Amino acid sequence: MSRSHVHNFSVSLDGFGTGEGQSLDEPFGHAGERLHEWMFATRWWHEMTDRPGGTGGLDDAFARRFTPGIGAEIMGAGKFGPPGWHQMPEWRGWWGTDPPFHTPVFVLTRHPRPSIEMEGGTTFHFLDAAPDEALAAAREAAGGQDVRIGGGPAVVRDFLAAGLIDHLHVVVVPILLGRGVRLWDGLEGLEKDYAVETVSSPSGVTHVTLTRMA
Amino acid sequence: MSRSHVHNFSVSLDGFGTGEGQSLDEPFGHAGERLHEWMFATRWWHEMTDRPGGTGGLDDAFARRFTPGIGAEIMGAGKFGPPGWHQMPEWRGWWGTDPPFHTPVFVLTRHPRPSIEMEGGTTFHFLDAAPDEALAAAREAAGGQDVRIGGGPAVVRDFLAAGLIDHLHVVVVPILLGRGVRLWDGLEGLEKDYAVETVSSPSGVTHVTLTRMA
Repeated sequence: MSRSHVHNFSVSLDGFGTGEGQSLDEPFGHAGERLHEWMFATRWWHEMTDRPGGTGGLDDAFARRFTPGIGAEIMGAGKFGPPGWHQMPEWRGWWGTDPPFHTPVFVLTRHPRPSIEMEGGTTFHFLDAAPDEALAAAREAAGGQDVRIGGGPAVVRDFLAAGLIDHLHVVVVPILLGRGVRLWDGLEGLEKDYAVETVSSPSGVTHVTLTRMA
Repeated sequence: MSRSHVHNFSVSLDGFGTGEGQSLDEPFGHAGERLHEWMFATRWWHEMTDRPGGTGGLDDAFARRFTPGIGAEIMGAGKFGPPGWHQMPEWRGWWGTDPPFHTPVFVLTRHPRPSIEMEGGTTFHFLDAAPDEALAAAREAAGGQDVRIGGGPAVVRDFLAAGLIDHLHVVVVPILLGRGVRLWDGLEGLEKDYAVETVSSPSGVTHVTLTRMA
């Protein structure tokens, strides 16, 4: 059965999944890249960016679960581009000509546009749809494989609130952002439906997984 | 030099240090005792409550740092009693005749009352004072020993914001309370002054320590 996963979703110790002031120059606002340094240090990331080296331990083991078995991604408008990208006809995402998804990607937006086929197997589709509708479309495109819910925080939260996430991997980074978009708002009692595991890494981050109980 | 410590301060995964709806029957509101079950399971807690058994691992090692070297505690009005306790002349705290502090305890309140001497070395003093004034009073009473900042969350946050905490031990419990009083609000960049360590326990909680760098 096709399941829905969140992988490598980083939040600060105070629960922010992105900073304040997202822009073309600062995709994560004032957070900068601080939420993702743990990932950039992994061997998996080094491989993806054609560089040697990288760490091969716990963080790497979690990080590289990003790809296997995933047949489509759903992401929010705020992950696809900076505020106002829907007014930029040439905008094709942050990731260059060969984005790291290599599957259909469904971008949730109130301003749909024609699909964009990129190199390497990524095709961006644009949907104005509720979470359950988007998930149905992504599942069909995934051809029986799993669907990744790619963020940002508001999208992950909406899918969690709608009961549409089967496996959630959150990485708590020990910094206090103070402002931005929170992941956990309005999810009282969420843990009751999940097996929760927590493991801290020598790098300083903590991996939290919520896996839906059958 | 006398340092200020926070020990065994539990928060939910979404950052709440206490639930909503604090009352005489529910000191932690709708959170109940869920934030503190990790502590009740330790050998240290069993010893404190004259029962055999209890766990002897990581949680116990952290929990029992509560006592050594501490000469006074500061707590907020919301920790001392339920809303309205200042209108209950007989209220002497939640802890019976022999509270677990065994030192002077300074209760921050807008309604000071005469000090109360309890059994076992605990004396409650009542202060209407800013954090720095309260810390000065507690340090004097501690006779050169350290001062524990006992909570609740708003008090710990106020002392952190004022730069008055030297060592913070927070225990993240993997539940989502959804509402209550947050610990981390308004503390952007706090980690810059501290060495941060994180370790997850087999019990499922994660211990986070912030230790001020000299």
